[in-house]
Amino acid sequence: MFTAETYVARRAKLCEKVGQGLMLFIGNIDIACNYKDNTYHFRQDSTFLYLFGLKVAGIAATLDAETGEAILYMDELTMDDIIWMGNQPSVSDQAATVGVTKVMPVSKLAGVVEANKGREIHYVPTYHGVTTIRIAELLGKTTKEVENGASVKLIKALVSMREIKEQCEIEELRKHMAVGREMHMAAMTMAHAGRTEAEIMAMVGRMSQRYGGPVSFPIICTVHGETLHNHGYPNTLKNGQLLLVDAGSESPMCYATDHTRTSPVGGKFTAQQREIYQIVLDANNAVAATCEPGITYKEVHLMACRVIASGLKELGLMKGDVDEAVMEGAHALFMPHGIGHMLGLDVHDMESYNEVLVGYDDEIQKSTQFGLASLRLGKRLKEGFVVTDEPGIYFIPALIDKWKSEGICKDFINFDALDAYRTFGGIRLEDDLLITRHGCENLGERIPIEPEEVETEVNKNRFNNF
Amino acid sequence: MFTAETYVARRAKLCEKVGQGLMLFIGNIDIACNYKDNTYHFRQDSTFLYLFGLKVAGIAATLDAETGEAILYMDELTMDDIIWMGNQPSVSDQAATVGVTKVMPVSKLAGVVEANKGREIHYVPTYHGVTTIRIAELLGKTTKEVENGASVKLIKALVSMREIKEQCEIEELRKHMAVGREMHMAAMTMAHAGRTEAEIMAMVGRMSQRYGGPVSFPIICTVHGETLHNHGYPNTLKNGQLLLVDAGSESPMCYATDHTRTSPVGGKFTAQQREIYQIVLDANNAVAATCEPGITYKEVHLMACRVIASGLKELGLMKGDVDEAVMEGAHALFMPHGIGHMLGLDVHDMESYNEVLVGYDDEIQKSTQFGLASLRLGKRLKEGFVVTDEPGIYFIPALIDKWKSEGICKDFINFDALDAYRTFGGIRLEDDLLITRHGCENLGERIPIEPEEVETEVNKNRFNNF
Repeated sequence: MFTAETYVARRAKLCEKVGQGLMLFIGNIDIACNYKDNTYHFRQDSTFLYLFGLKVAGIAATLDAETGEAILYMDELTMDDIIWMGNQPSVSDQAATVGVTKVMPVSKLAGVVEANKGREIHYVPTYHGVTTIRIAELLGKTTKEVENGASVKLIKALVSMREIKEQCEIEELRKHMAVGREMHMAAMTMAHAGRTEAEIMAMVGRMSQRYGGPVSFPIICTVHGETLHNHGYPNTLKNGQLLLVDAGSESPMCYATDHTRTSPVGGKFTAQQREIYQIVLDANNAVAATCEPGITYKEVHLMACRVIASGLKELGLMKGDVDEAVMEGAHALFMPHGIGHMLGLDVHDMESYNEVLVGYDDEIQKSTQFGLASLRLGKRLKEGFVVTDEPGIYFIPALIDKWKSEGICKDFINFDALDAYRTFGGIRLEDDLLITRHGCENLGERIPIEPEEVETEVNKNRFNNF
Repeated sequence: MFTAETYVARRAKLCEKVGQGLMLFIGNIDIACNYKDNTYHFRQDSTFLYLFGLKVAGIAATLDAETGEAILYMDELTMDDIIWMGNQPSVSDQAATVGVTKVMPVSKLAGVVEANKGREIHYVPTYHGVTTIRIAELLGKTTKEVENGASVKLIKALVSMREIKEQCEIEELRKHMAVGREMHMAAMTMAHAGRTEAEIMAMVGRMSQRYGGPVSFPIICTVHGETLHNHGYPNTLKNGQLLLVDAGSESPMCYATDHTRTSPVGGKFTAQQREIYQIVLDANNAVAATCEPGITYKEVHLMACRVIASGLKELGLMKGDVDEAVMEGAHALFMPHGIGHMLGLDVHDMESYNEVLVGYDDEIQKSTQFGLASLRLGKRLKEGFVVTDEPGIYFIPALIDKWKSEGICKDFINFDALDAYRTFGGIRLEDDLLITRHGCENLGERIPIEPEEVETEVNKNRFNNF
């Protein structure tokens, strides 16, 4: 359970790690969609949630690394707030729930920052222009200077803490996996000819929202799985197609689930689909069998790539030595992305900080090779990490044509054999793994993934009158 | 239908109205939720949509008021774009659909702005920090200067055009009202004890999304209708409560619907609810009977307020002369908001420009009186306006207590009689009206609104097994 002590302990630990200076945390505001008062759903900044827990828009905090003093900057409600937005607990009651005793009006923040002039002011990188402008005004800097001035020391301290999930975080994630499961069970049962991607996406989103949580990232729901981050939903399903759904839900404490399943429209994989599906499933299972503290995620990634290359070689789509093929990056024609990423308050956990500072370290550097360059997490796994396991195989006509015409990896690819796969689409299978002392655990009840299980779910067609 | 000619004609007209200088239009980018690459759904800027139609993130345009030259700044897709986001038509093909023949890479925009140094550069107010920063960099100004430097001439020209809906816009709005209707029909049928606000909200959202469009503003779905912009969904419905749903859908061309209905949980209004409901319905009908070109919306608002005050007087909640009561703003205890606003590409149409420049003019000035100050539209109606008609009656305990203790409008309010209404909540009924030559038209098939009709819909309980 998340208690005031949870936050007090985190802040104390952070102060110890950062050692000196003043840490400045700007919470998110309501972000405009098409004008200031028409906003997207409010999402508090993840760093703010981790340290100060409050899901209130427009607040801020400072934390003195030397004295440990935490101050929240929040305004009491006005009568107008009550009329338009409803009543809320007093700010001191809210602050008490996260163990903060000192609360000041938001207007006092500038004075506190001014009074600390000369000391080091730490802040994390911004991703909202309005926050950049705010920090620039507070520090008397240009927006460009603010963009380049985030504190590496603060980032490294936060990464070292947030990457190891606490018991309360693991419980929250494990519990919310049931909602992620519902989303995918709904999608499977709707994988029938005549349904539209839009209506399935809408149902998947509803399954998340009905439990009070928004989706944790834009739903991918597409018969064109070969487009990795497909955010459009223009198509009507046809028999023989594959429906790829990559979707997750945000839990009450704002932790993300992230799963992918690929279903045969109409309820029966073709022989060709099933062969490719089995390779992806083998890679997914191999990752779960391999993950344990001490192994690097880069090794896990390359192992999964070898499973894929080996399977594609058996089908006659790849050729030559599998180890060499993977070393050369030939498999990346079929899987151009990484095997996974960290998961937590963000679906790509801590990605706002800096991908390299989160996923890599002095020992494991990020590669520039096509495919491997997209691996977000390369470093050694530790007990308490939560990572995704998401191999995929895609047939991307534009990429195949480019490689073929330029002769890229031609010793490892049977380009002619690929003609039969040009309209195949793509398959991805994604689970969420907790790294345990001696291995890993698939978080939550596993969503049906064996091809027969998936066919059974599709054939239930539970919402056929809806 | 929206054609290339639609946009060519709008731009020509705008150039004529603005007369001189260069107009700069920065399209929206994908807006971060909790880190840069985890974005909210993309919404193009409404001004950009109106003039350049393209729903593409990160593009920009210039329009020379003197020569009429329109340039779109767009980049061709890279192989990485195709892998991650899928294929798209070429930029010149996209530009041709909105009648633009000159396209340049985004990187060329700065040079074009630089080459026009010395001329007046017009832009509309920004609502995304990132756009403010972008314009500041382009113009060599501070973000503060950009915030204060929007072109009143450009705003006035755009308001004079966008406020009169063209035939293609009216058709788009009228057609999409069917989706808004579905949303509310779904909510009514789910107004049963044991259902949660969250699951009804999720179903209402799904009804919008299944047709491919996001909601046009955050759904209000609450048993606490007295909180005007209630964006939380924490409650489970109980018999005897009222469920207020204020929701709309965005059409394929990004036009908004906006309706409110209030349903009795369990399917039967209490006598007390029905009395209040009837007053709100009378006010709603009176607005539709009154709207026509030439009347000011302020007059319409005050007329609706008199209907409400008169009804509340009959129930013994108000007293004294109705005209005087409304003149003093006494009704605003029960309806603190305005009777409506313009509707179009934005649910509060053009609100990003400046509420006063959109809803008021030299003739009709904005009031500062509580209640009337919240009226977004006061000026004379013209044929082609689309406005909302949304009276409401709310019992807001905190506001009642304040007025009672301070004796505000005590000659017009029977405070003691209000004790029986402290947990009543609120009722609002909202339709969308097109101002026609001699009156107005309720856009689309009217959503059930007579109390018996609403009870019938609730009692259908269509989704009871779902």
